[in-house]
Amino acid sequence: MFDVYPIGYVRKLDESRSEIELLPRFSEALKGVDRMEHLLILFWMHRFTPSHRRMMQVHPRGDTTREKLGVFALRSPMRPNPIGVTRVKLIEVRGNRLLVEGLDALDGSPVIDIKSG
Amino acid sequence: MFDVYPIGYVRKLDESRSEIELLPRFSEALKGVDRMEHLLILFWMHRFTPSHRRMMQVHPRGDTTREKLGVFALRSPMRPNPIGVTRVKLIEVRGNRLLVEGLDALDGSPVIDIKSG
Repeated sequence: MFDVYPIGYVRKLDESRSEIELLPRFSEALKGVDRMEHLLILFWMHRFTPSHRRMMQVHPRGDTTREKLGVFALRSPMRPNPIGVTRVKLIEVRGNRLLVEGLDALDGSPVIDIKSG
Repeated sequence: MFDVYPIGYVRKLDESRSEIELLPRFSEALKGVDRMEHLLILFWMHRFTPSHRRMMQVHPRGDTTREKLGVFALRSPMRPNPIGVTRVKLIEVRGNRLLVEGLDALDGSPVIDIKSG
């Protein structure tokens, strides 16, 4: 088992834009991020419970008219390790805050990694 | 803090090809994976120690002639949560084993998620 910890949190601004607020102790790790056009954001899908982590097959997009598939063939948030991965457009870095476009994480989601994308 | 657990392990076959052996209790979650051409593999970069997790800036590709950048501007394995994300080509599914091409994970790396990619 491995421990993963939040490096920041998502705040939804509107349909397409979100702000990632980094925890102050990770500020140094942002050096050079402002030169990037795209980033890969890893976040914890925190609304899902331990029982969701035990689901092995689900209907694609929750559509019960479609046959169930294995979660490893899907992007469903129900999966053993509920980590979301999304490539986003970086709009602006302001101190510890990143303004990004296209992040499909719910408001309040813990961010666990940021990579050049 | 969140708990992440291995769903399988990487075995390097040669420079480009690897096999992912899934733990038997996750077999059901593979249903439909054999229809995919590409997958996103999340793995734990297990050779890195807790002190590597505290490094905030490193030289890009370990090249000391280049200025240090923040780990969030890089793909370096030294980062607070050492999770690798790689898009691979799926060659074949045989029972619990996936043969893939292009996975840059070291031999023995724990796999923590597989997504349609």
